[in-house]
Amino acid sequence: MEIKIELTKHPKEKPSSENLGFGQVFSDHMFMMDYTEGKGWHDPRIVPYGPILYDPALMVYHYGQAIFEGLKAYRTRDNHIVLFRPDENMKRLNQSCERLCIPKVDEEFALMAMKKLIEVDKDWVPDAPGTSLYIRPFIYATDPYLGVRPSNTYHFLIITGPVGAYYKEGLNPVKIYVESKYVRAVAGGIGAVKTAGNYAASLKAQQEAKDLGYTQVLWLDGVERKYVEEVGTMNVFFVIGNEVVTPELNGSILPGITRKSCIELLKHWGLKISERKISIQEVFEANEKGLLKEAFGTGTAAVISPIGELYWNEQRVILNGGKIGELSHRLYDELTGIQYCEKPDPFGWVVPVV
Amino acid sequence: MEIKIELTKHPKEKPSSENLGFGQVFSDHMFMMDYTEGKGWHDPRIVPYGPILYDPALMVYHYGQAIFEGLKAYRTRDNHIVLFRPDENMKRLNQSCERLCIPKVDEEFALMAMKKLIEVDKDWVPDAPGTSLYIRPFIYATDPYLGVRPSNTYHFLIITGPVGAYYKEGLNPVKIYVESKYVRAVAGGIGAVKTAGNYAASLKAQQEAKDLGYTQVLWLDGVERKYVEEVGTMNVFFVIGNEVVTPELNGSILPGITRKSCIELLKHWGLKISERKISIQEVFEANEKGLLKEAFGTGTAAVISPIGELYWNEQRVILNGGKIGELSHRLYDELTGIQYCEKPDPFGWVVPVV
Repeated sequence: MEIKIELTKHPKEKPSSENLGFGQVFSDHMFMMDYTEGKGWHDPRIVPYGPILYDPALMVYHYGQAIFEGLKAYRTRDNHIVLFRPDENMKRLNQSCERLCIPKVDEEFALMAMKKLIEVDKDWVPDAPGTSLYIRPFIYATDPYLGVRPSNTYHFLIITGPVGAYYKEGLNPVKIYVESKYVRAVAGGIGAVKTAGNYAASLKAQQEAKDLGYTQVLWLDGVERKYVEEVGTMNVFFVIGNEVVTPELNGSILPGITRKSCIELLKHWGLKISERKISIQEVFEANEKGLLKEAFGTGTAAVISPIGELYWNEQRVILNGGKIGELSHRLYDELTGIQYCEKPDPFGWVVPVV
Repeated sequence: MEIKIELTKHPKEKPSSENLGFGQVFSDHMFMMDYTEGKGWHDPRIVPYGPILYDPALMVYHYGQAIFEGLKAYRTRDNHIVLFRPDENMKRLNQSCERLCIPKVDEEFALMAMKKLIEVDKDWVPDAPGTSLYIRPFIYATDPYLGVRPSNTYHFLIITGPVGAYYKEGLNPVKIYVESKYVRAVAGGIGAVKTAGNYAASLKAQQEAKDLGYTQVLWLDGVERKYVEEVGTMNVFFVIGNEVVTPELNGSILPGITRKSCIELLKHWGLKISERKISIQEVFEANEKGLLKEAFGTGTAAVISPIGELYWNEQRVILNGGKIGELSHRLYDELTGIQYCEKPDPFGWVVPVV
């Protein structure tokens, strides 16, 4: 398929690289492709970023058949633009499609389209330290139909926008509330894929935790309400003695690409990393024994998000004196170093765009 | 708040009352109202039904913050138009809002707006037996923003459309597959409210059941995978000996209005109705003992959907010889009789529109 390109006649003013937020500013163009039952994915095109006319019966508003991915393009010091493991995002995109009964896309084609879009909007990739171009590929159901069944038509879009350093004042540890009332997902459900409903389901707990002065929640499993699953919209790691532990992928945890990269880095460094069940009780007991050294979240937006405090069952744990831990820092430096091509990339994770 | 009314200049052709489907045809007008943080719900209006321009970063596409209701308006034999327990729908709409961090609406105002819309489109309420006007109130997040938090803006819409009799060839019992692999919802999650994500989560199981020749799935609980929860997008009832059993509302089951009405009717009739835990094992054992007389689903679309066959664990149960049961039939006749004002309404369930 050939990608048609229609360039904007009204380029927008770009925000200063120094004062970028997250998710509010979008580049001049977007990629779009349609799916029609019997015809497959068709009409791939890069067009000016702008609103789309939709029938109010659009299935996605009613039945949430929607999936997405999130990744970033980085401007290197020598002015190249690169992506970090985008093939992993495309693979997960299709896993999400599979679970949500959405027709799969050709991963190589989608990645090519993404690169093309970034090339067209290459001036939108910011250059201040820690900034990047956030990339959001997403697919949603577009039948104007009220009835519960998979849609026969879909739109696949890629939109992008410049984003600032996630931590404006440096890598500050966050306060986390261990969630005992709400559940994010359960095995057999949709927790292991990036679909809209998982995020909607997380809002209430997040809001209540914020009202109590916490940044995010730590999710426990929905069956026994004992085992750690994720933190906010990130995966979670604990450093206990000389073991680094992250919950094993159990069908309700999102298989994060930053999670995967951390595991691979930790192995590469010769550290003991275990993917296993870990109860919140074990975490708190490890702390009592003086073994809980660090905890951190991993995700595309923040890369590494150190946890400074955990609250559970009327107990409060301050980790590493509320300061960022050594391993959290090392992982953050290594991953961002690789992403911006400031450090060697022994795994071949970095993919050039321009 | 005053509702502005802009009538269409291009009324559409109405489909024949005899050949109506479900959810594909929409009336000439829609109700719409906006929410802006700090300003509340504002600008209620009835406008010609038509597409709306939306930014591709619209939060609902990405994070699924969306809820809805479904109910019907019925044309009576003496040419009035009535609603069935619409206050219950408005109450549940707000319960869904609460769980999804969506600002609540004024229930009385929303109901008044709905009646106004139906009045404007009163000619769209079909008159063939078993037909009705399906009404879909829904709210979704409209911030153009990529970040997981509740939206600051929303749209509340009501759209309507004429729908046919659910069972074109009469009340035929359906074949149901008891789902052991996928889970719909779990306590602490969003299963008890009408939000988009629940329906997206149900598609895969429904598709696999269809491929095996079944109409719908029977959902089991997500914790022990033993207890019956719902059937497809309906609540479920079993007649065991002289007891009618429906799963108790446990935080993961949708509190259906047809369910509630059936319970009230059964009590009114002096029958033994229990809201309690019921395992699928108990259902199959009751069958072996010859005690399982009937099973049926309840919901707005079908009212009563008799179950003719259950498949679980390589065991197949044929209910009531695959025919509709006596109680299923009685409930269907009574409920539809009340809805169309053909039978007395001792509970005051019916609300006149025009």
